[in-house]
Amino acid sequence: MVIFTGEHTQDGVAEFDFELTVDDQRVPAVIWAPAGAKGPRPLVLMGHGGSQHKKVDSLAARARRYAGAFGWATLSIDAPGHGERVRPDEAEAMARDLAARVRGVAQPVAGPSPIFKTMAERARRIVPEWRAALDAAQSLDFIGSGGPVGYWGLSMGLVLGVPFVAADPRITCAVFGLGGLRLKDQAFAEAARAITIPLEFAFQWDDAVAPRETGLALFDAFGSTEKTLHINPGPHGGIPQFENAAWDRFFLRHLGDRRQRSKP
Amino acid sequence: MVIFTGEHTQDGVAEFDFELTVDDQRVPAVIWAPAGAKGPRPLVLMGHGGSQHKKVDSLAARARRYAGAFGWATLSIDAPGHGERVRPDEAEAMARDLAARVRGVAQPVAGPSPIFKTMAERARRIVPEWRAALDAAQSLDFIGSGGPVGYWGLSMGLVLGVPFVAADPRITCAVFGLGGLRLKDQAFAEAARAITIPLEFAFQWDDAVAPRETGLALFDAFGSTEKTLHINPGPHGGIPQFENAAWDRFFLRHLGDRRQRSKP
Repeated sequence: MVIFTGEHTQDGVAEFDFELTVDDQRVPAVIWAPAGAKGPRPLVLMGHGGSQHKKVDSLAARARRYAGAFGWATLSIDAPGHGERVRPDEAEAMARDLAARVRGVAQPVAGPSPIFKTMAERARRIVPEWRAALDAAQSLDFIGSGGPVGYWGLSMGLVLGVPFVAADPRITCAVFGLGGLRLKDQAFAEAARAITIPLEFAFQWDDAVAPRETGLALFDAFGSTEKTLHINPGPHGGIPQFENAAWDRFFLRHLGDRRQRSKP
Repeated sequence: MVIFTGEHTQDGVAEFDFELTVDDQRVPAVIWAPAGAKGPRPLVLMGHGGSQHKKVDSLAARARRYAGAFGWATLSIDAPGHGERVRPDEAEAMARDLAARVRGVAQPVAGPSPIFKTMAERARRIVPEWRAALDAAQSLDFIGSGGPVGYWGLSMGLVLGVPFVAADPRITCAVFGLGGLRLKDQAFAEAARAITIPLEFAFQWDDAVAPRETGLALFDAFGSTEKTLHINPGPHGGIPQFENAAWDRFFLRHLGDRRQRSKP
């Protein structure tokens, strides 16, 4: 079930709020597209990071830019236990926990931790949620089905995105970042091996959350023939601005520039 | 001593041949620039690969594109024992030897090999040669001194470029690729650590000439704050075409677009 709950246009970009119901769970979602868009166009799915939500500033700004500069639509949903699916005080506690892990303050956990278990639950839950949201997006006349679909996700957006991208053949290219593969996580390794679409993977060389060997192992595991690993020095949150421009060009290469193509 | 030996213009790009004499060695060199260029402009130094020469097709094509698309000048020299500094039959023997190493056919050598010794000799010799060639280029009114200077070199162009870039403060950014750092090579490690300018480093994950751990060690060793490692699957010669576009954008970021800047 899909209920549209709001529409808002600013600077030539329309923002559509809607809600899905998936396995009795309410899943708030948003689509950005050029205002007055008609006809099919490339779609980017963006998976937000841990403690963030579907309209976090950096994600919304990128979605608006994609609509304005390239004519693409972007879909984002609140992950399980995030955004409108969590109380503000719970979101703040998650943000504090994540900030400690980014600083390397929290103890590394041997084997499945409560957090890890929660993340595995989130990963199982989000696959049908993403599929339902993608169904809804592709039913809209200004997106349509059959066109190229990119996925973008860093950190938790990678952890939850890898199982989804492995499961849904509609995704045609993906940008991942800020995550790795731990030896014991067989299900995640299998999902990574099942992915064969073109990938760009951004990794931080001094990431306290995802140690170097886990990033290299994940890059190795991906089943794609076209896969590129971009490594920069610095911590979890420190991806240089120029990688943002590299993602543009990766998506332009694989999704095409809707605005240029539609001009004579 | 600098002697200009030829000038040739094609498709709006001028090609100037010249010769330097450095330590009694004749060093053939070439500069590409927009035809009729006046005033200072960014300069790119390109170091060719083993068994190649200063005008090898891929290098010359990139230099012409840089002149036409961005207004830059490009300088290239024949490395010691290469191009006009070697007999054709010697060049062919080198090419056969390199092809075997790229295929992983040649035996790995423990400790300094004759080839390695020759490469170390080339590295010592090329530093004053590059400096003299850069002096000559910067004395030209359509290049000038004080502007940004990029270095580009893959494989032998990396092996010979790292000591040069470490030694010459006029180089302001560099693209390296297809090389690594072996534990025993202290002089090379020191040169890498002495480099602090922005770098982009392209590495092939299945390179028989430069194993994975040597590429990661070299990335680690570079002293630069801004350094990005791009890893792609495949062998020594298999860098994807989109990395060529990434080099354009790296140099555009650090050298500037001469043609755009000079327009109102």
